[in-house]
Amino acid sequence: MSVWHDARLIDRLGVEHPLWLAPMAGAGGVDLAVAVARAGGVPSLPCASITTAQALEQIEAVRRETSAPINLNFFAHEAVEPDAAAVRAWRERLAPYERELGVGPATSAGGGRAPFDDAMCRLVEASRPAIVSFHFGLPAPPLLQRVKAIGAFVVSSATTVEEARWLEARGVDAIIAQGYEAGGHRATFLDGSMSTQPGLFALLPQVVDAVHVPVIAAGGIADGRGMAAALSLGAAAVQLGTAFLRSPQSLVAPLHRQALAHARDDGTAVTNVYTGRPARGLVTRLMRELGPMADDVPPFPHAAAALSALRAKAEPNGDASFQPLWAGQAAALCTADDAVDICRRIIHGALSRAAANS
Amino acid sequence: MSVWHDARLIDRLGVEHPLWLAPMAGAGGVDLAVAVARAGGVPSLPCASITTAQALEQIEAVRRETSAPINLNFFAHEAVEPDAAAVRAWRERLAPYERELGVGPATSAGGGRAPFDDAMCRLVEASRPAIVSFHFGLPAPPLLQRVKAIGAFVVSSATTVEEARWLEARGVDAIIAQGYEAGGHRATFLDGSMSTQPGLFALLPQVVDAVHVPVIAAGGIADGRGMAAALSLGAAAVQLGTAFLRSPQSLVAPLHRQALAHARDDGTAVTNVYTGRPARGLVTRLMRELGPMADDVPPFPHAAAALSALRAKAEPNGDASFQPLWAGQAAALCTADDAVDICRRIIHGALSRAAANS
Repeated sequence: MSVWHDARLIDRLGVEHPLWLAPMAGAGGVDLAVAVARAGGVPSLPCASITTAQALEQIEAVRRETSAPINLNFFAHEAVEPDAAAVRAWRERLAPYERELGVGPATSAGGGRAPFDDAMCRLVEASRPAIVSFHFGLPAPPLLQRVKAIGAFVVSSATTVEEARWLEARGVDAIIAQGYEAGGHRATFLDGSMSTQPGLFALLPQVVDAVHVPVIAAGGIADGRGMAAALSLGAAAVQLGTAFLRSPQSLVAPLHRQALAHARDDGTAVTNVYTGRPARGLVTRLMRELGPMADDVPPFPHAAAALSALRAKAEPNGDASFQPLWAGQAAALCTADDAVDICRRIIHGALSRAAANS
Repeated sequence: MSVWHDARLIDRLGVEHPLWLAPMAGAGGVDLAVAVARAGGVPSLPCASITTAQALEQIEAVRRETSAPINLNFFAHEAVEPDAAAVRAWRERLAPYERELGVGPATSAGGGRAPFDDAMCRLVEASRPAIVSFHFGLPAPPLLQRVKAIGAFVVSSATTVEEARWLEARGVDAIIAQGYEAGGHRATFLDGSMSTQPGLFALLPQVVDAVHVPVIAAGGIADGRGMAAALSLGAAAVQLGTAFLRSPQSLVAPLHRQALAHARDDGTAVTNVYTGRPARGLVTRLMRELGPMADDVPPFPHAAAALSALRAKAEPNGDASFQPLWAGQAAALCTADDAVDICRRIIHGALSRAAANS
């Protein structure tokens, strides 16, 4: 018997607690995944910005430490080649910063964030993870079919009810309702308008009512209160990312970690200036001066390449102006404790609050 | 003994349930207040856009029906006279619509939404409501002192932790944490930036941690699930407005009521084109074409006057393009039931969910 009222997801996946680690490209890895698994949650590995060889290595490393069901996460955006004019216009917007810092224009071409493809699918087929999750929709039907054929539990994120219905119609096993509070990239794939994105309080129950599959709540959840609240709103589990960014297991850059220690409830915004897609992070100089939402940014992930030289020069000088500091709106509630302890405190807090409310 | 875990507010105010009616200028009135009082909640009367004589009449009407503690709500913005150039520029932006509809420019001068002043304070002193709440901060200290001198329980709304701390330092008895999901005017009074406004999931626990007074949750709460979730996050009560907009007791215009019946989770945005201050409503043609946030709008409430002729011509033709359709992000969860039944269902849902979670 589970201690949780809604045991659909935990029974199906064989985990103790309905708490998922959010896959955070660049910040999450083996250590964070293992910590969450040790605490009884679902370990996730972000595979969108690493090679398949690196991913395989990480999967093996996690499996040496835990038998928990692994969640491999991939991006499912449509790769769009920017036209030369858009790239040139963006570089012109960045030129004043390059003059200020005394660096030449960036020479890096790609963005390092490829959509799920045949090679990644072969990785999935070879490693047979219990869970495969996607961001920015779903891959093309033949690829999705191959993932389902190995028996993986397939998950993707919705930022609106319409996206949730779209995902359910294509056969996902669970849907992450990503509230507007969430850190990192918005999963938005049907309509790019950020002005109408619902917060988790409104989104979650509406998604729960609209679909039959279990719903995982994400965005602004940082402690036991948030976990209890999400379950009250009908979530079968919660997915947390920002909560772990300050833990020793996180791989965030030192300046990012420092900035998180001074986070405020009103200190983040959704911006597209770092990658070309909307994502929530702590407000930086680049966001204030070019955005937070810029009209003339090249398509994801090509905006990022043009920033590489600026970041490389600024970061060692303690200047975080040109790097993304992804974080959700509850970043100020997050601690620098060990990720295992963070998990346990959240789980204990949620369980005791449910009891206290009765 | 209360059935509620946290009885601070209900004990202090002598009400049965921690559910407040949001004061909605234009949509709320005697009938809605009486309905919420009958269900055991706190009845609120919006006094910002009516005369003091009308307010007195409404207070007496509510008191004939219920002994519940009344909450009188006022605006506390600083009245700013727009410069002639700003008004002219705004009228030029609206001129194409006036040509399209064949109406002359609006001749109405004022906006009909005055800040709390001596006359309103005399109304408070004469009627001695149990609760006085403010939107857009607090009135000047001498006025606030007079309100406190009659023993009123003083409340105001915060959209950030900083605003909550500001309010507590000035002696409010409770703070409404207004999440970004909320319909109608954002209470924002310290910083106008809408890009960093936190959703309720993130805002509420951070406000609860930051202040000592009880916190009332507002924004995106439409049913028992939402009420239970807000209490889990530390709220001492919830305040609901959109939940009642479709009830027979609501005074919303017929086109507004029709639009609410087709609301979507992603169908609202925060706009300043209707009054000059940011407020959330169902997306209209005016919001799509001029905003949702316009740079050149005259200060609150002067943007509204220029729209009066357009609305007067369009509305009778079934065209809601030029009127605000205030609504929160959970509008799609709201029903057209009697407001007493809506209250009871929400309260019952919250109580049964708290029990189910244990």
